[in-house]
Amino acid sequence: MSPIVSEKHREERKALILDAAKEVFIKKGFNAATMQDIINHSGVSRGGVYTYFQNTEDIFLAVMKKRDLEDAMDLTSMYNECQSNWEVLMAIFEGIKDTIEFKKDLLVPAIYEYYFTVGFTTKNHLSSLEERYKKMKDSLSAIIRRGVEEGEFTAVIDCDDMAWSMISFFDGIYIGSFQLGPEKIKIGNQFEVFKSYLKLTLSVNKA
Amino acid sequence: MSPIVSEKHREERKALILDAAKEVFIKKGFNAATMQDIINHSGVSRGGVYTYFQNTEDIFLAVMKKRDLEDAMDLTSMYNECQSNWEVLMAIFEGIKDTIEFKKDLLVPAIYEYYFTVGFTTKNHLSSLEERYKKMKDSLSAIIRRGVEEGEFTAVIDCDDMAWSMISFFDGIYIGSFQLGPEKIKIGNQFEVFKSYLKLTLSVNKA
Repeated sequence: MSPIVSEKHREERKALILDAAKEVFIKKGFNAATMQDIINHSGVSRGGVYTYFQNTEDIFLAVMKKRDLEDAMDLTSMYNECQSNWEVLMAIFEGIKDTIEFKKDLLVPAIYEYYFTVGFTTKNHLSSLEERYKKMKDSLSAIIRRGVEEGEFTAVIDCDDMAWSMISFFDGIYIGSFQLGPEKIKIGNQFEVFKSYLKLTLSVNKA
Repeated sequence: MSPIVSEKHREERKALILDAAKEVFIKKGFNAATMQDIINHSGVSRGGVYTYFQNTEDIFLAVMKKRDLEDAMDLTSMYNECQSNWEVLMAIFEGIKDTIEFKKDLLVPAIYEYYFTVGFTTKNHLSSLEERYKKMKDSLSAIIRRGVEEGEFTAVIDCDDMAWSMISFFDGIYIGSFQLGPEKIKIGNQFEVFKSYLKLTLSVNKA
């Protein structure tokens, strides 16, 4: 077997393990999931799984990395579908609101559990998390900056700082909805309010 | 012993246990803390502790309830110290920023850990948490409403919804700082940005 085929085979096996592991983590949470659960659910042999991963944290970090790649915002395609920078920003808001409101990201409970138990001690997730925050911040900031350059927005505030404030707002909504449910914290109204903040601050000219 | 003295004695013993337990939770986190740890650290007998509390979750919920009472915003005294509704709002912002930035609330790691492990299953904390959110929302909303009534603010948005958006923002900053540290997420700049949103939205007239 050529090394290229072998590498492809490795990647396929890893993907198989990660997909199975994701289902296990969704069902059992992070701490209750065992290597045996993942071995059983993936159908890959014990030796096979341990070839790639040492423990459930290893696997969980790989699952989150895969999710980050899948989640990555495709700004180019958003710009193709939207008429203005404001519309792109609002499409992102809608997407995040939907994900939270309809609990589309089933891995979230396990992620929070990991963050505040094992991850709090090992800190093994922090470099990826920082990267995730940074990418999100850069994307949001780029949209605002482009809007300013095109005369659609008037920015009186630093674009990066506005982007950070959006991320905090999304994170807070995530936590609040996770705990009390989206209705109790009035998620719909909150998104409208935050949109108003931005609209006023950016003096949106074309939206 | 009269029933009144006995009740006072009970309350003192409970307070003693809760203060000791808080220190244990701060040191060990929620899940690693045992009843034995709390018995040892409080100096109260096993039987004494179990008279009041069945398990560590029971104690943790009581510790959080005590914290809620201590945390409760004293709007009356804030109004005495501030010149305007805007100043009161800003004083609250400063207080929260300080608490997050300088990690003043040492119980936070244990609280998050509890929320996303045992609490996620038992949901025993949710009624208190809902109460905590509601009180915070009501306080913030009342400040905005008073500002509108006094002609200091012009509110174009529902006061409750604005209050909710502040809570989400604070929660998001909490989580982001907890994970990456306050500097990485630019907590100072974020607070300034959020203040600008409010100032613009409320068309603050006297501040």
